[in-house]
Amino acid sequence: MSTATPAYDALSATYTRLHHLSHLQSIAGWDQAANMPPKGNEARAAAMSEMAALLHRLRTDPALKDQIARAGAEPLTVVQQANLREVRRDWLLVNALPESLVQRQTMASARCEHAWRAQRPANDWAGFLENFRPVLALAREEAALLADKTGLARYDALMDRFEPGMTSARLEHVFGDVAQWLPGLIRRVLDKQADEPAIRPVGPFSIEAQRALCERVMRLLGFDFEGGRLDVSTHPFCGGVPEDVRMTTRFTEDDFLGSLMGTVHETGHGRYEQNLPRELLGQPVGHARSMALHESQSLSFEMQLGSHPGFVARLSPMLVEAFGTQPAFEPANLQRLLTRVRPGFIRVDADEVTYPAHVILRWEIERALIEGAMEAEDIPAWWDERMARLLDIDTRGNFKDGPMQDVHWPSGLFGYFPCYSLGAMYAAQWFAAMRRDQPGLDGRIAAGDLAPVFDWLRDKVWSQASLWTTDELALRASGEALNPAHFRAHLEARYLG
Amino acid sequence: MSTATPAYDALSATYTRLHHLSHLQSIAGWDQAANMPPKGNEARAAAMSEMAALLHRLRTDPALKDQIARAGAEPLTVVQQANLREVRRDWLLVNALPESLVQRQTMASARCEHAWRAQRPANDWAGFLENFRPVLALAREEAALLADKTGLARYDALMDRFEPGMTSARLEHVFGDVAQWLPGLIRRVLDKQADEPAIRPVGPFSIEAQRALCERVMRLLGFDFEGGRLDVSTHPFCGGVPEDVRMTTRFTEDDFLGSLMGTVHETGHGRYEQNLPRELLGQPVGHARSMALHESQSLSFEMQLGSHPGFVARLSPMLVEAFGTQPAFEPANLQRLLTRVRPGFIRVDADEVTYPAHVILRWEIERALIEGAMEAEDIPAWWDERMARLLDIDTRGNFKDGPMQDVHWPSGLFGYFPCYSLGAMYAAQWFAAMRRDQPGLDGRIAAGDLAPVFDWLRDKVWSQASLWTTDELALRASGEALNPAHFRAHLEARYLG
Repeated sequence: MSTATPAYDALSATYTRLHHLSHLQSIAGWDQAANMPPKGNEARAAAMSEMAALLHRLRTDPALKDQIARAGAEPLTVVQQANLREVRRDWLLVNALPESLVQRQTMASARCEHAWRAQRPANDWAGFLENFRPVLALAREEAALLADKTGLARYDALMDRFEPGMTSARLEHVFGDVAQWLPGLIRRVLDKQADEPAIRPVGPFSIEAQRALCERVMRLLGFDFEGGRLDVSTHPFCGGVPEDVRMTTRFTEDDFLGSLMGTVHETGHGRYEQNLPRELLGQPVGHARSMALHESQSLSFEMQLGSHPGFVARLSPMLVEAFGTQPAFEPANLQRLLTRVRPGFIRVDADEVTYPAHVILRWEIERALIEGAMEAEDIPAWWDERMARLLDIDTRGNFKDGPMQDVHWPSGLFGYFPCYSLGAMYAAQWFAAMRRDQPGLDGRIAAGDLAPVFDWLRDKVWSQASLWTTDELALRASGEALNPAHFRAHLEARYLG
Repeated sequence: MSTATPAYDALSATYTRLHHLSHLQSIAGWDQAANMPPKGNEARAAAMSEMAALLHRLRTDPALKDQIARAGAEPLTVVQQANLREVRRDWLLVNALPESLVQRQTMASARCEHAWRAQRPANDWAGFLENFRPVLALAREEAALLADKTGLARYDALMDRFEPGMTSARLEHVFGDVAQWLPGLIRRVLDKQADEPAIRPVGPFSIEAQRALCERVMRLLGFDFEGGRLDVSTHPFCGGVPEDVRMTTRFTEDDFLGSLMGTVHETGHGRYEQNLPRELLGQPVGHARSMALHESQSLSFEMQLGSHPGFVARLSPMLVEAFGTQPAFEPANLQRLLTRVRPGFIRVDADEVTYPAHVILRWEIERALIEGAMEAEDIPAWWDERMARLLDIDTRGNFKDGPMQDVHWPSGLFGYFPCYSLGAMYAAQWFAAMRRDQPGLDGRIAAGDLAPVFDWLRDKVWSQASLWTTDELALRASGEALNPAHFRAHLEARYLG
């Protein structure tokens, strides 16, 4: 059958094929984390590497370049044009790097990450540097190549892979502003909370009861168990495919709150995936917009909704049903537990108020590293200075809870950290827009009616996939591009109100 | 690097690649049965179909024909020669059928199997026939093509896909012999057992206790949980890959024996896969020899070992630990339960004595169907006559528990049934050889020392993969090719001894 868009159709067929084959890769990846016995590892790694090579060959097929050029002259619909934009972006990213560089990166980061797993507990910064320097050198090489292809600054070219359109020039403004008011806000919150002690829950908490509680809360949050699962893995994540979302968590009998709120967080990722428009699945335009927008969903669920007093009041009786009555489960106390602010060393343990400090510090460092304004050995001094200034914490000599704490750098992942805080900011912006669009929202949440939240997110974010740039999506959703004032207002209202 | 065997090496590399990609297909297939939520089905089916097409293209690559021809003239080792034999066989089978036939078969059997799921409970033989006739016509077409390529008789060409080397001429002798003595043996066993009542276990049996019991018995049977798992699926099977064997079972609170013995059965399949020689994995010569030999392992575990009085005596205290004391768990009673003979309608529920009757009947019918000596509408009359003669059961008018009971025919699977009984015969032959090779074997089993059994099977069967033809393997393992006298001797010793 001949159509008016033969080149576009050929591209579309290739991406549908990639979608099908990636499905198997995703499920095998989830299985590797959730099910696979240890002796399966070698065969699985070989199988996934074979598939990765196959997917890479399909995405770098020389025929694509010409098809992309020809498709641009075809009479495309608005959706097809958006898809072609995303196809072009995918093509550019995957073709920008020579295979030899990718191989050297894979080897260097595998070595560095492997060594880091032992060096971090040993606080061995000097040993870490040996393996980290080649990883950094290769990341700089990659950034220079991507900058050349995209016309972006070098660090921005790395960040653009995760957050298309975001630049350090904008972040200077956004994060610079936060860095100004955050230390003062933290001090005021700490002062206020000093008079508001919170009672800790008393364990043990049975794993079965925790699992049932998590599933119950996921249902309350609208997760579709007909199109997804909850399982256990060492490092919780949201994987699988949009048609079959595989969330994981982990349980410990000592504590249930970490697992529960982690599950609420991942449920936000899961619902975004489950509600991407079915008719676009398989095409790049059908993917979630960006990593900051993905984090904006998980943080909408975990922070905006999950620590909302109205939601916390719904949660309280569920905890009693799961574990029996405890003073800690009283709504007011639970609210205090979920909003407790405490400056600390570790990013992943940070509350929503101190979290941006951890991100800003990393962004400054990795940007300077990539642009050559800093060398690996300069990291600790910068780290110590910023942690003291932003969080009033002394990190000197503590590398393992300092610059060695995250897996990102040892594995060669630069440019991702900003997405976490951008996600928190977008989440605050969504809820500000939601309150404006739907007066009485907080009352409905308190009444247990979460539909207005989900309807808004589905309408404005989930169903929009990658139809628009992030700025366009934010504008259409909330009437403005990213505006960090909503995040500040959210923190002030919740923590000082 | 140039070698003396470039064509062989190219073939070998292709099969290694197939092995890696099939790994993902196997794990996704297991996941589909054990984990997948319903809404994942459509995307999974599309993904697996894409992969099946890819694997088919790799296996039918026109370059293979020439490589196979050239490899035959290269200086190959004995193992490489065996591998080339299996590669040639794989190539012949996958290239024998035109794609259009395969597509028509897929559609006809999908339609027939789907309709059968409703027609069987409704006992709707007339409705079934409408969909089954095209399935049969296509199977005849396939048989004619395969016969043409292989030089085998038409039915034998279908059977050869599962049991290479087996012919109906041999089965006439083997099954014909069984059909002679079996009805008399059954009568004598029924007479004997009439005076030996068995006490039924009293449930409910907690699913968690059943799961723990199954895993304990699997460990006793040597299943390596570092290289495999036990999960739950509607239709139990042994899937995954040799490096990561995924067994499934199903539990019901009313009964534990079915699930337990099913698990023992699948553990036999699982250990065969887990113990295939690692250095041959990925190559056709590294596969399990045949379906009859695979069944010979599951039945060695389930029947030869699982109902061995020495093993049953070890099982008895485990049941008490799992479910508390019951008269039914006494070793003598448990032995009676596990060896109870009762002619019935349903093959999958049959005991080991009456089972061959179900297989012989199906073999006669499907052979006549494929060779054109019988039409689909003639099946019931033949069925009724044979069930009356072999098992003294009246099946007239009961299609759903008669010729409509198995999924094989509606899904177009002809030539497989003989493997079940051939497996039982080989299992009896292995244990006869084991007893000859290792005097005192039964005493060691009774003492809980199963190592001699596993060592023999590993040495003679598992480690031999597809290095030899089935006949050669049987000869090397037991000193003779298939000899059904061992099966008869086993039944007489166990049931009339």
